[in-house]
Amino acid sequence: MGNTPNVARRSESSRQAIFAAARELCAERGYGRLTIEAIASRAGVSKKTIYRWWPSKGAVILELLDEAATMKAHHPDTGDLAADLRTQLTAVIGMLAPPQTSALAGVIAEALHDPALAHDLRERLIEPRIAEFKNRMRQAQRQGQLSPDADLDVALDLLYGPLYHRLAFHLGMPDPAYLDTLIAHALRSLSMTQ
Amino acid sequence: MGNTPNVARRSESSRQAIFAAARELCAERGYGRLTIEAIASRAGVSKKTIYRWWPSKGAVILELLDEAATMKAHHPDTGDLAADLRTQLTAVIGMLAPPQTSALAGVIAEALHDPALAHDLRERLIEPRIAEFKNRMRQAQRQGQLSPDADLDVALDLLYGPLYHRLAFHLGMPDPAYLDTLIAHALRSLSMTQ
Repeated sequence: MGNTPNVARRSESSRQAIFAAARELCAERGYGRLTIEAIASRAGVSKKTIYRWWPSKGAVILELLDEAATMKAHHPDTGDLAADLRTQLTAVIGMLAPPQTSALAGVIAEALHDPALAHDLRERLIEPRIAEFKNRMRQAQRQGQLSPDADLDVALDLLYGPLYHRLAFHLGMPDPAYLDTLIAHALRSLSMTQ
Repeated sequence: MGNTPNVARRSESSRQAIFAAARELCAERGYGRLTIEAIASRAGVSKKTIYRWWPSKGAVILELLDEAATMKAHHPDTGDLAADLRTQLTAVIGMLAPPQTSALAGVIAEALHDPALAHDLRERLIEPRIAEFKNRMRQAQRQGQLSPDADLDVALDLLYGPLYHRLAFHLGMPDPAYLDTLIAHALRSLSMTQ
């Protein structure tokens, strides 16, 4: 009982209002000009409420991205590897679009100078998704859809690299036809013996 | 004559001092906390001098990155495509290392909210390098080292994507052996008929 702050007491509606405000403000002004004060004001909560749950704006953004990824970017397993990769990569492309683009780019840039944020970025956002990807690829190896010798680190780099490279340099996200071309190239190169 | 500001009158030593200061401060504090005032103070020049040459800190950083890329990241043509890609990608990996990492990540994030900076990023930094890459690949096609059907946009995505994906997610840059593995996979997938 008592008044100890407790994660279980978070009001889900406040939490979602904070995420929506942070996402919108990031898209409008950029991560660099985002402040906890502005998030609180737009979400209709106090700064104290935000600081009770998160240590920094980077932590708010990271949780928002983690939640979006958890809800939207699972790896299906229909038995057709190329089709399943298309489904999952299309979801990732959707997540990299505005209003999330600025949030992700900002948190990546800030993590270079904030070891705690970098740690959380790796532990919460990245490593679980890499593990999920590799599980799906191992399943494809068991099903005979991918060579047992395929290098799964190379697979990750060839399939996801293009999205972040294109995001960084404003080259535009792959359209469905080009995404299929990328997947076909990656899978072909992985299925050959060294 | 007269006192009109003129690019030709830039003192090269001041220019290099400004770049060195900007690069160091970015590495120490991150792009988000970089100011023209701090650059001026460390470089031993006035803020007015910096603003005479560049409209914003983003413009300083962009020119610094452009100069580093021009000096270091040419595409050699020894007639051995894989070896030449290794040389050029190794130079790019060197450019993405500290102290340049923060500068590049910061300017990419800011360009999402600064259309003038985004325009310069594309026109000055990215498009000339993509053109140079494609020229080298066309030369390889003429020399019979790469299929005439190879999709050069896919080539760009498969070869450079992994670097930016790894940079964004703190996955570490490829070591020489892994870089060769990536290049081998990319070239294999490009040399096959669809």
